[in-house]
Amino acid sequence: MDKTVLKQRLKKQCIETPSWGYADSGTRFGKWVQNSAARTLNEKLEDAGQVQKYTGICPVVALHIPWDIPEDGNWDGVKEIADGYGVRIGAINTNVFESQEYKWGSFGHTDKAIRQKAIDHHIECIDIANTTGSYGLSLWYGDGSNYPGQVHFRRRRERFQECLVEVYSKLTDNLRMLLEYKFFEPAFYHTDVSDWGQSLLFCQAMGERAQVLVDTGHHPTNTNIEHIVATLMSVGRLGGFHFNNRKYADDDLTVGSINPYEIFLIFNELVDGELSDNEFIRGQANNVAYMFDQSHCLKNKIEATIQSAIFCQETYAKALLVDRAALYEAQENNDVLVAEEILKDAYNTDVRPLLKELREEMGVDPDPVMAFRRSGYTEAKAEERVKLHGVATGGGYQ
Amino acid sequence: MDKTVLKQRLKKQCIETPSWGYADSGTRFGKWVQNSAARTLNEKLEDAGQVQKYTGICPVVALHIPWDIPEDGNWDGVKEIADGYGVRIGAINTNVFESQEYKWGSFGHTDKAIRQKAIDHHIECIDIANTTGSYGLSLWYGDGSNYPGQVHFRRRRERFQECLVEVYSKLTDNLRMLLEYKFFEPAFYHTDVSDWGQSLLFCQAMGERAQVLVDTGHHPTNTNIEHIVATLMSVGRLGGFHFNNRKYADDDLTVGSINPYEIFLIFNELVDGELSDNEFIRGQANNVAYMFDQSHCLKNKIEATIQSAIFCQETYAKALLVDRAALYEAQENNDVLVAEEILKDAYNTDVRPLLKELREEMGVDPDPVMAFRRSGYTEAKAEERVKLHGVATGGGYQ
Amino acid sequence: MDKTVLKQRLKKQCIETPSWGYADSGTRFGKWVQNSAARTLNEKLEDAGQVQKYTGICPVVALHIPWDIPEDGNWDGVKEIADGYGVRIGAINTNVFESQEYKWGSFGHTDKAIRQKAIDHHIECIDIANTTGSYGLSLWYGDGSNYPGQVHFRRRRERFQECLVEVYSKLTDNLRMLLEYKFFEPAFYHTDVSDWGQSLLFCQAMGERAQVLVDTGHHPTNTNIEHIVATLMSVGRLGGFHFNNRKYADDDLTVGSINPYEIFLIFNELVDGELSDNEFIRGQANNVAYMFDQSHCLKNKIEATIQSAIFCQETYAKALLVDRAALYEAQENNDVLVAEEILKDAYNTDVRPLLKELREEMGVDPDPVMAFRRSGYTEAKAEERVKLHGVATGGGYQ
Amino acid sequence: MDKTVLKQRLKKQCIETPSWGYADSGTRFGKWVQNSAARTLNEKLEDAGQVQKYTGICPVVALHIPWDIPEDGNWDGVKEIADGYGVRIGAINTNVFESQEYKWGSFGHTDKAIRQKAIDHHIECIDIANTTGSYGLSLWYGDGSNYPGQVHFRRRRERFQECLVEVYSKLTDNLRMLLEYKFFEPAFYHTDVSDWGQSLLFCQAMGERAQVLVDTGHHPTNTNIEHIVATLMSVGRLGGFHFNNRKYADDDLTVGSINPYEIFLIFNELVDGELSDNEFIRGQANNVAYMFDQSHCLKNKIEATIQSAIFCQETYAKALLVDRAALYEAQENNDVLVAEEILKDAYNTDVRPLLKELREEMGVDPDPVMAFRRSGYTEAKAEERVKLHGVATGGGYQ
Repeated sequence: MDKTVLKQRLKKQCIETPSWGYADSGTRFGKWVQNSAARTLNEKLEDAGQVQKYTGICPVVALHIPWDIPEDGNWDGVKEIADGYGVRIGAINTNVFESQEYKWGSFGHTDKAIRQKAIDHHIECIDIANTTGSYGLSLWYGDGSNYPGQVHFRRRRERFQECLVEVYSKLTDNLRMLLEYKFFEPAFYHTDVSDWGQSLLFCQAMGERAQVLVDTGHHPTNTNIEHIVATLMSVGRLGGFHFNNRKYADDDLTVGSINPYEIFLIFNELVDGELSDNEFIRGQANNVAYMFDQSHCLKNKIEATIQSAIFCQETYAKALLVDRAALYEAQENNDVLVAEEILKDAYNTDVRPLLKELREEMGVDPDPVMAFRRSGYTEAKAEERVKLHGVATGGGYQ
Repeated sequence: MDKTVLKQRLKKQCIETPSWGYADSGTRFGKWVQNSAARTLNEKLEDAGQVQKYTGICPVVALHIPWDIPEDGNWDGVKEIADGYGVRIGAINTNVFESQEYKWGSFGHTDKAIRQKAIDHHIECIDIANTTGSYGLSLWYGDGSNYPGQVHFRRRRERFQECLVEVYSKLTDNLRMLLEYKFFEPAFYHTDVSDWGQSLLFCQAMGERAQVLVDTGHHPTNTNIEHIVATLMSVGRLGGFHFNNRKYADDDLTVGSINPYEIFLIFNELVDGELSDNEFIRGQANNVAYMFDQSHCLKNKIEATIQSAIFCQETYAKALLVDRAALYEAQENNDVLVAEEILKDAYNTDVRPLLKELREEMGVDPDPVMAFRRSGYTEAKAEERVKLHGVATGGGYQ
Repeated sequence: MDKTVLKQRLKKQCIETPSWGYADSGTRFGKWVQNSAARTLNEKLEDAGQVQKYTGICPVVALHIPWDIPEDGNWDGVKEIADGYGVRIGAINTNVFESQEYKWGSFGHTDKAIRQKAIDHHIECIDIANTTGSYGLSLWYGDGSNYPGQVHFRRRRERFQECLVEVYSKLTDNLRMLLEYKFFEPAFYHTDVSDWGQSLLFCQAMGERAQVLVDTGHHPTNTNIEHIVATLMSVGRLGGFHFNNRKYADDDLTVGSINPYEIFLIFNELVDGELSDNEFIRGQANNVAYMFDQSHCLKNKIEATIQSAIFCQETYAKALLVDRAALYEAQENNDVLVAEEILKDAYNTDVRPLLKELREEMGVDPDPVMAFRRSGYTEAKAEERVKLHGVATGGGYQ
Repeated sequence: MDKTVLKQRLKKQCIETPSWGYADSGTRFGKWVQNSAARTLNEKLEDAGQVQKYTGICPVVALHIPWDIPEDGNWDGVKEIADGYGVRIGAINTNVFESQEYKWGSFGHTDKAIRQKAIDHHIECIDIANTTGSYGLSLWYGDGSNYPGQVHFRRRRERFQECLVEVYSKLTDNLRMLLEYKFFEPAFYHTDVSDWGQSLLFCQAMGERAQVLVDTGHHPTNTNIEHIVATLMSVGRLGGFHFNNRKYADDDLTVGSINPYEIFLIFNELVDGELSDNEFIRGQANNVAYMFDQSHCLKNKIEATIQSAIFCQETYAKALLVDRAALYEAQENNDVLVAEEILKDAYNTDVRPLLKELREEMGVDPDPVMAFRRSGYTEAKAEERVKLHGVATGGGYQ
């Protein structure tokens, strides 16, 4: 690929960072705290602004409702606040899994009143999306069951689909719905939207603006995710990504930290779509929503988010470097070794010098993570936020 | 459930045994041989007849083409031969994975000539199905790739779908196509029909008489198979089963040998479908094709097949015993423990006395495996078949 | 086995329940609350007394320090309080994973001061064990790392071993140390005591009274746990169990809820040890500490613990019913099918009538879970405890 | 690391290639054939010579007995034949898994005569090792069971250990025994040497020259192999490696083809050992036997072996580039992100220019795989070997 074109594409790369990624998190055994962590919507947007400042490719922030409801409940000024930090609002994430009333599920609940409550929450999120200039809803459900017999699968599925279709009917034309799937957790026997097949069936029932969201940590171990990505593109249902990495379960580690080659192979499919001569495929590939969903409980949150963005930038660059003409030829000839080596050639290329150059053109620091660390932002915010909110406190298992 | 009704249902239970299950098998490290193992179609049907004789619930035999092509190539008399052994012909299994020409795939192959060859094989199998009185084709593909880059996923998917649709267009109205999926093996990087979602998409492209076949050993570890079964019933695409059990990969062990409760939970969904007040669901549940696909390389093949049938009989009986009215009530009330205990009550019931009684009514021996062992069939056939074909020989890795 | 002997053994069965199992728990996404849940040591012992009252086989309670430190810090009266509820104190579980100071580990920490702090905590627990009449320490560590490079494996291992050996040197002769292993979580890249091999090596370094503790949910998926159990018995290092069940990760579900046959196979090894003619093996098998470690966030905690105890009682009874002489013979003859069927015969036996009889002899209700539910204890305690502590509150991800 | 020192180390790198890797292989569904594949010991050594010729780092060939027994049964000239091809004999691999007599196991077999047969085979292999100048035995067992109840774990373990100790007693002082473990396959319920813990216990029973062999494809999914490697070094039992890669089971794919970073992390531990200031650790690290065990059924075998060697060379070079002083500092400070980035810096370095330079100094072609392909060796040997042995034939499932 011509270097100018390559750089043009790299400059257009855009990854959405999650507001909740700037707040403290942990495991079921407790939360690890950092005094500099964000605790209000304003602070989260401020932190997201830092990531954008040091990377230039993260101008969008996903919100989580109700975690991000402004203190005064007023959404009118949020767009401007975000703008002030150099970012804009991305996907609105609904949350119908945390409140005690959702103990037995949300859209799958046996009680119509709870289902209605969940529907209302979605409708509120549609409003928020429209007020904040978002492109749509990002949907993940904790719904499922822990024991055989606990629920009736088919009845539950019916209820779930009814609610989704109801929400879709309220979706304004400018928005889309991205439906995430997850193999397990927090439910440990069955999950209502357990895999891409389940998500796809629900999307088919809803309509064209309902698409599948792929979280890279939500599959059974060993799953060939890039194959799923290609399949979803083929059938017009690839909506977006939650990037992260896992070694065991849904570990929510920094993207690329465990198996960077796997992420490269996923980007390879996406670039293949972007460069396709099939307009339908190309249109989709250029409209994928890229997001992070990670839990940086040990690392500094902003540093880790910058690190993640840089990894995705490097990986996208490598995927753009793949010699696709040669690859197709090797594939047509079943020359396995050569096809494989073409991918590896691109993957093994050290793109860091190129990206330093790119960053200079984009006006960002060539060494983003360290530049941020040196800036003193973390120390300043720790001091400021402790003054405002007190010392951060953990919360254990008991 | 009323005991008379229970017995009526149990008498109608029907599980298809696979012709290839009577022949020697092994692992990639070598084949373990038994002199009594069947080597010809006639011998396989004869052995299948024994399983039917001792169980009364296995009157159907699935064939594998070309493994089961009669020595004279003539299919005309096969129905009668089967009839002579007390069995009839079930699903016709196509085989486009073994011949060297399929090294790079069959329906996914880059070479149109190979794809056409595979299509022709399927059309031949449709003919065989019609000649032998079979109800349809059972389809499993070894297609996939071993290395990243080896194939272009979307192009390959297009080719695959085109071929399936072409075959479907030749399917006579009396037949159906059951499309199996498999997570991996023999391909180790990607499999073209890797999961139920992939299979379902292909079935949707083909038409109503294309349905998904669930092999209990073909999922990522931990997959909730009963949830998939229920979902496929919900959307009208549950075609059939290959029963077996696994601990690690596609181990093809005797059904129920590793996790018998899991098989009970699957039967529980099927019975729930059979007893549904929804006619669409009920119709499907009563039309599911039950088959075994196991590799009894260490056990006597007929004994192991009888053992498998008895396990399925016991498990079906237990599933019929579930107090569904009480279960629904517990489910509606989110009484997890009680719902779970209702399933366990049925599962913990010792149905063996009931089944001995049933067998007497059906005119089969109350202790099927041991009755078969005592019959001397194995020793007699070993002698006879060694005379005919020579001593069985293994085949190692090298 | 003779029915009288069988009953004698069943009457001697003893399973320890965990104090923390009576308190609220949840997942990383939040805690599900029950107003009746115990919040103080006294309440936990009181609840444990209920389990003993309705089962007769759970007279021991494991404690977790510091969760169970008495409000006045005084351990002197705890033995008597427990006694008043019909229970006694079992294993003392150390906790060096929750406090913020253990963010980077405890015995594996780079900072000697933190390691010393963790050692001191263990020594305190030895004192508590001696004061409360416990038989020893139960050790589980959250230590590990989340990212490649984060720690130096060999150096960390040295530090870890040094600390363990130091604690062992303080262990009074009447106590033993049970060292648990866990594949992953809360650490997501490496765990310091990740498998039975790691635990065994540390035990070898400590001495004879250091033994391995097997938590059934702490293995890689598909692991043959019964094989590990047998191996640990062979080498004299089987210390105890944490029973629970899992489908995906360390789900901490009710024991037997997902794969009851697996638990039967584990009990089968234990009974085989109890009945061994090898005194060394027999001695060990009779000295295994049986405990639960489950997270009943959806079920009523006492009901679920009773349910677990009953499952273990049924499973132990089934394992005792195995015809061991016949099994050995089949094994010697490599008669796979018969050996398998001998196990299944015992497993398929409905032992519930026998256990009802046993319970009458033991003076406990024949239907333990439902008897407890009917007693009104839950409702009474909910009222009482809300008065004392207020309404139970959850705690979400943020 | 100083470039001169780096190159010195790279020039001393040595990876053993397996004789069986030059012969045809496949899956349980059939063998994929190549006319150029080696069929005799001589041809295998000849092919191995090619790998050494084009890489310069593969001068040793592992043999498999009885697959590699010379046609005339005479081992005397083998050393010279190998020498003629520029290679020498490495590990002697015993094979007690393929012959029908080992159907129920070898060292674990119930029949003493079979166990003795297996012992005798090992003693024969010790002789072969001494005749051919090998350094020792490489031991892998197919022993295990397929069904619960089939074997008595503790008795079987005793028999197994007795046989191993017996063989060890015959081992001449110049040799060592490398004991491989494997999670599953060909046995599907339990494997006698299932994990590193089992292997280690057997090695402890044998003596100091018995060490553990790590096959990268023989672990439960997600296992942290580098942690095991470090642990085995700590306790002085790291013997050697079988390199390959897996996505699902023991797929035996080309090393680095699925998760190249994982292999880098393993090399990182090994280099850390090589550079340790602890003499005991350093001694071990410098004495590790590096081997491949892969099944290149789709790729040209020699090309794939060269590709594997080059991958290991690149990965070793990257591991040597890790800034260990900086890494230790980051680890001591718990600076997770920096520690991680130090590893990634080395991993992301494009070492290909350096290696081209190195190859020129070593007198081998800078582009090994393509140079071999262009040489016409494959075509020439296909012609020659078809003339000698006939066209290669596959072997299917039936």
